Amino acid sequence: MELGRIEGTVVSTAKVDRLKGYKLLLVNLINPDMKATSNYVVAVDTVGAGKGEVVIVVRGSSARQAKTLQHVPTDTSIVAIVDSIELKGKIVFDKAAGE
Amino acid sequence: MELGRIEGTVVSTAKVDRLKGYKLLLVNLINPDMKATSNYVVAVDTVGAGKGEVVIVVRGSSARQAKTLQHVPTDTSIVAIVDSIELKGKIVFDKAAGE
Amino acid sequence: MELGRIEGTVVSTAKVDRLKGYKLLLVNLINPDMKATSNYVVAVDTVGAGKGEVVIVVRGSSARQAKTLQHVPTDTSIVAIVDSIELKGKIVFDKAAGE
Amino acid sequence: MELGRIEGTVVSTAKVDRLKGYKLLLVNLINPDMKATSNYVVAVDTVGAGKGEVVIVVRGSSARQAKTLQHVPTDTSIVAIVDSIELKGKIVFDKAAGE
Amino acid sequence: MELGRIEGTVVSTAKVDRLKGYKLLLVNLINPDMKATSNYVVAVDTVGAGKGEVVIVVRGSSARQAKTLQHVPTDTSIVAIVDSIELKGKIVFDKAAGE
Repeated sequence: MELGRIEGTVVSTAKVDRLKGYKLLLVNLINPDMKATSNYVVAVDTVGAGKGEVVIVVRGSSARQAKTLQHVPTDTSIVAIVDSIELKGKIVFDKAAGE
Repeated sequence: MELGRIEGTVVSTAKVDRLKGYKLLLVNLINPDMKATSNYVVAVDTVGAGKGEVVIVVRGSSARQAKTLQHVPTDTSIVAIVDSIELKGKIVFDKAAGE
Repeated sequence: MELGRIEGTVVSTAKVDRLKGYKLLLVNLINPDMKATSNYVVAVDTVGAGKGEVVIVVRGSSARQAKTLQHVPTDTSIVAIVDSIELKGKIVFDKAAGE
Repeated sequence: MELGRIEGTVVSTAKVDRLKGYKLLLVNLINPDMKATSNYVVAVDTVGAGKGEVVIVVRGSSARQAKTLQHVPTDTSIVAIVDSIELKGKIVFDKAAGE
Repeated sequence: MELGRIEGTVVSTAKVDRLKGYKLLLVNLINPDMKATSNYVVAVDTVGAGKGEVVIVVRGSSARQAKTLQHVPTDTSIVAIVDSIELKGKIVFDKAAGE
């Protein structure tokens, strides 16, 4: 999985039936030191993630393993909102502390 | 998923039976700020997308989850036409406004 | 899917049983403007493609969806021979015209 | 599969049900000469790997083939702790020797 | 699929049950002109490949399609030992000739 930060939304009315009702979020992939990369993905949200939150993104067929997504044509899903990240002994992200 | 813009078509008569009847579009992958990347993919269209439209592209086995594509040998499908994109609080794309 | 040009063959006698009988072709991935990239893949041919032909390559589990390949351990298959490519309103490739 | 070194942990309470109970580790992908790359992945641990250990990481649908992970939405799993690595006739890593 | 050369082995005792009994080889991915790239993968051997041999590597779920690997958590398998490679009309690799 990869770490990302929610930075926007994509709105679409003309879409495949099986995608209807799902919120599509723009996620900027980030490094563990919290620095943004230049890569963005469009992800289906499964955990009620909001703008600016740090999340875990799952790709490929595994993106359909969140229970309700079995036949949804998504290859990228948000499966967790991150509380904290520890890297090499340091807390590099702590949601409760406002980072 | 990824954002892309439809820039062309690929015509083929000698192809696998299961691909027959599907339109193959050339999609230029774009960044959320609407800038084109140098990457192109050939995608099966499932939503009637037209030239110049901004779309969402799905890859891998999920590309076969749009209902009619279950056994079609495609790894890239267009599953949505984008109406608008919001990035960091700004509307960066609005189809109705002619962008 | 991706565009490629057939540039060679790979011969192997010691291979997994399920791969036996399939022709393995060296495909140079190309951009839609017909320029070669530095990337090559080894692909199973399903459409009788020949040297120099421009083809469509499918990756991943979808490479096994061409009917006869269901349990073949291939992650890259040639599923179509390209007749013509139109990019931004121009015909950039036309097989009949000798390009 | 790829080689990596465990460098941290990711904590999340708001996550997909099927991910609950699994430890999420930050893995820095490394080259066979043991040099760190700039790439990190978030992986589900299946073998009790600890900080600093060199492990083997599996991606994609295969990441769910470790027995207990069949319906877990993970695309990256740690499936082995490395004892030693031999590259071009030299032992480049030996856990018992403290490397 | 991709071409590679076997350059080493990875030994692990603490691994997922389903991986037990399989030999894990370090494969250096190579270009069709036989030049090494900087990329290495850890692959399950299914054809008895030895040090220095040029092989074909399969990725993703297809890596489990070699008959005995159906539920093995591998995303990279060696499925063929290469005898010869022809690129643009020239034999660029011939195992029998000592290359």
